[in-house]
Amino acid sequence: MTPVMSSQEVSAFLDEVFPQIHAGGRAYSVDSISDGEAVVRLSATEMHLRPGGTVSGPAMMALADLAAYVAILAHIGPVALAVTTNLNINFLRKPEPGDLLCTCRILKLGKRLAVVDCAIAGEGEEDYVAHATATYSVPPR
Amino acid sequence: MTPVMSSQEVSAFLDEVFPQIHAGGRAYSVDSISDGEAVVRLSATEMHLRPGGTVSGPAMMALADLAAYVAILAHIGPVALAVTTNLNINFLRKPEPGDLLCTCRILKLGKRLAVVDCAIAGEGEEDYVAHATATYSVPPR
Amino acid sequence: MTPVMSSQEVSAFLDEVFPQIHAGGRAYSVDSISDGEAVVRLSATEMHLRPGGTVSGPAMMALADLAAYVAILAHIGPVALAVTTNLNINFLRKPEPGDLLCTCRILKLGKRLAVVDCAIAGEGEEDYVAHATATYSVPPR
Amino acid sequence: MTPVMSSQEVSAFLDEVFPQIHAGGRAYSVDSISDGEAVVRLSATEMHLRPGGTVSGPAMMALADLAAYVAILAHIGPVALAVTTNLNINFLRKPEPGDLLCTCRILKLGKRLAVVDCAIAGEGEEDYVAHATATYSVPPR
Repeated sequence: MTPVMSSQEVSAFLDEVFPQIHAGGRAYSVDSISDGEAVVRLSATEMHLRPGGTVSGPAMMALADLAAYVAILAHIGPVALAVTTNLNINFLRKPEPGDLLCTCRILKLGKRLAVVDCAIAGEGEEDYVAHATATYSVPPR
Repeated sequence: MTPVMSSQEVSAFLDEVFPQIHAGGRAYSVDSISDGEAVVRLSATEMHLRPGGTVSGPAMMALADLAAYVAILAHIGPVALAVTTNLNINFLRKPEPGDLLCTCRILKLGKRLAVVDCAIAGEGEEDYVAHATATYSVPPR
Repeated sequence: MTPVMSSQEVSAFLDEVFPQIHAGGRAYSVDSISDGEAVVRLSATEMHLRPGGTVSGPAMMALADLAAYVAILAHIGPVALAVTTNLNINFLRKPEPGDLLCTCRILKLGKRLAVVDCAIAGEGEEDYVAHATATYSVPPR
Repeated sequence: MTPVMSSQEVSAFLDEVFPQIHAGGRAYSVDSISDGEAVVRLSATEMHLRPGGTVSGPAMMALADLAAYVAILAHIGPVALAVTTNLNINFLRKPEPGDLLCTCRILKLGKRLAVVDCAIAGEGEEDYVAHATATYSVPPR
């Protein structure tokens, strides 16, 4: 599965069609795109934190949803119309302070549905803090 | 299943322990608490929207997560330590502009886990725009 | 949402296209079909039980999957090609011995996907023993 | 994460406490146990098939549930009391005829909950036919 967009191209597309994801300050960035995969970074700001400085559950859900979208986009090209139909997330451990990386792997890129595996971990950490699977409805290509 | 906190008491508790949910302006409010149930409202602001004025997926996930927490809190009392362990959401329809209400029903309030059914719909609408189930780990009582 | 097949018609169709669901003896039967809903019964046999006479998790998953299919079929007509794309189930309580009823409600019947809410309870019981949501990919109609 | 039971020990334990999984003929077997992982095989019999000889969805759900249990058991020792609390499965492709292998990786083995990632593929195949995550409630140790 070969990507058709670079991380710069995906980032530029997101800035254009979803400027709202940067409301409250730039927190999400595309780290890398590779065969069937994408890595998206969350540099949490105050609004993503819970007492004690730990990243909130909703911030991790938003990260998984965005990262899955980035992975799909990078492999099908700039189509704003892909929409999430299902997201299932398990919260595994309280994250340590610091950036979180969401590593996405496309499990299926079908004619109508794409399914993506999303693992969230602190930078340089092996244990996941959360694991999600996301399904997107993709436009006919 | 009888609530032990009123919607005012739950709201005051949230303001105290999770002030971050109001980052970017007050958007979430507790509409009502009743036997085994809670209704939480999202009055979307710019940061919750996608192009076209529709509420974003992550905003609905955050709403479901918060509303499930409100339902549990209202029935076990002010315990900050309940944490989400799993959330599964299906996005069913694009929401119309306007407030969204998340109606939560506690399916199980066990010694260690609570499971909550969450239905999100526009105010006065019958069709759900999203449906979620959330599991919280609850502290021993 | 008005059904287009009766419970007798759905049962006859299942017997014809999925005789395997009766392997090991008839255990599943369609109790009723109504607007947007279906009720399917599991009369557990030895193969569905765990030690102590309680119905196994896999038997409840199979029940939810079949009941969701019955609900969809009853509303779109006899199409063997609907296939499950996602199933999420929460096990809430250990079931008492006796028949289990799975009550399904169609949350969405779209052009490509159908989403069904499934509640499983003992006959005459109010508390669910399990709750599932199932998504089916449905053929263009 | 080091296993405390071998595949032979887990198999013998299953035969003793869950003889029902072999109702209709031996179909499930433990292929291997390693650090944090387990592989369980389904050699489908008539009752696991759908028209065309493809393995049914419920047979794959049962496989994922059993394989996750095997993985946990192998790492916590012979405790019959671990029970599934949640299972989420995405069906990705129609399986080809032949054995299916479910490869499980423990994502978390906590004091109260264990979360397991389950990938199902045909023997020797790279593409998954299904992917699941299962949560078990585990007894205090």
